[in-house]
Amino acid sequence: MSTSTRSSKRQKTETDDKPFRLVYWPGIPGRGEHIRLAFEATGTPYTDVSNQTEEGVGAVIKQVSEDNTGDESNPPPLAPPILQHGDDITISQTPNILLYLGPKLGLVPDPKDDPVGLYHVNALTLTALDGLSNEPHDVHHPIATTLYYEDQKPEALKKAKDYRENRLPKFLGYFERVLSGKASGGGEYLYGGKLTYADLVLFQTLDGVSFAFPNCISKLRKSGKYDKVWALYERVKGLEPIKAYLASDRRLKYSMGIYRHYPELDDQE
Amino acid sequence: MSTSTRSSKRQKTETDDKPFRLVYWPGIPGRGEHIRLAFEATGTPYTDVSNQTEEGVGAVIKQVSEDNTGDESNPPPLAPPILQHGDDITISQTPNILLYLGPKLGLVPDPKDDPVGLYHVNALTLTALDGLSNEPHDVHHPIATTLYYEDQKPEALKKAKDYRENRLPKFLGYFERVLSGKASGGGEYLYGGKLTYADLVLFQTLDGVSFAFPNCISKLRKSGKYDKVWALYERVKGLEPIKAYLASDRRLKYSMGIYRHYPELDDQE
Repeated sequence: MSTSTRSSKRQKTETDDKPFRLVYWPGIPGRGEHIRLAFEATGTPYTDVSNQTEEGVGAVIKQVSEDNTGDESNPPPLAPPILQHGDDITISQTPNILLYLGPKLGLVPDPKDDPVGLYHVNALTLTALDGLSNEPHDVHHPIATTLYYEDQKPEALKKAKDYRENRLPKFLGYFERVLSGKASGGGEYLYGGKLTYADLVLFQTLDGVSFAFPNCISKLRKSGKYDKVWALYERVKGLEPIKAYLASDRRLKYSMGIYRHYPELDDQE
Repeated sequence: MSTSTRSSKRQKTETDDKPFRLVYWPGIPGRGEHIRLAFEATGTPYTDVSNQTEEGVGAVIKQVSEDNTGDESNPPPLAPPILQHGDDITISQTPNILLYLGPKLGLVPDPKDDPVGLYHVNALTLTALDGLSNEPHDVHHPIATTLYYEDQKPEALKKAKDYRENRLPKFLGYFERVLSGKASGGGEYLYGGKLTYADLVLFQTLDGVSFAFPNCISKLRKSGKYDKVWALYERVKGLEPIKAYLASDRRLKYSMGIYRHYPELDDQE
């Protein structure tokens, strides 16, 4: 690899010959975190460009510039996260990057044994991102992403109530149901009895909503209705490479990204 | 095939041996429309279960029931559209169903020639669905999907303004940029110079926003800034199988689904 990396090391695989570069906004976990977790869980070297190199945020700006029309084989990305694999491959959209990385990092079922497994993992990922990442973002920005939270606070208060009372239980209940189903392969992981990137996405989104809505999540955890979901959360959190990552300075703190802790948007104790 | 189909016929391919069933809410185009268009554009027989069989809406209800935990190999779906392929495969999430169908229906680049093409098509699809399907839905339901539009109208008016002035031009500008880029293969289609399912999705989402915001879209079309986008729209609309489909009674009318025409949410002439 031509660039340095701070990620933990594991045995090299055939996919290691071209370096992976993650291009994402610096300083926040954001949607880039899903990509980081896939690399970290598998000990795959990668460069977190805007956090780890002198290119900084410029790497993002260049990609999302209105002058960027892509190149011979890659359309321009609308927004980060963006994965660069070697010199010639640029992939965007969080679930799409995971889809691309999944087979390379061993985070999906082997297509020889289970040719449809990849699609189930993708569906579970899309669903977690919809309900536990996009929607929590929209809670604090219900009207316009270009306005400050403070300028849409009355609407955010209403949307937060609906999110806590209806949407969050709906999505937690869905994943509890997935973990109760036979296709989960025993209920320890979402699909096929083994860790896939869908589990990493669910872990990260649960971690995010726990930061944003601590009182609400505390009540939901105590309800006992979603025990399999929270057991999965703790299981992923306890995996050695994830534990090491979470304790490292590569794990960025939540701040003004997707998951924000505004006490007025949480349950009032 | 065990079930009747009203779709147009074309030469059978090897994927025809197991029937395709689309399970979606009856009577509206909705997200199911993206799946219908993939079948229709390629002359692939399929059954639109809730619109064409006696199972009706029951087929959807059964799948999304809180008692459904899926089966041995398929997790339960959260929501329609749902694709059933033969007796043993159930796939959910619109972009995921398209990803599954793409190679089978010839709506993605041949992976032998272009192993990364599928991911570009998927990214373009996700982006069109984000900005031109999910966001227009949220315009009329900015606070809660469980409330009526009338109960969130003040918020919808604000969000509609932002959507028309900022978001819609942003996404149209993005796709114009994609069509101006070399990876589009000449600018007639989004990627690789040939029709892919990303073009069908862009067509459908443009058609939807044209229904929802006719005054705004008319102005944006006249601006001349997005001519490649609208040329693509007309190109897809003019494809023989699509033309035949749009003229058929299989093409459902917009009503109270994703795309709704509330004049107060559009530009005022």
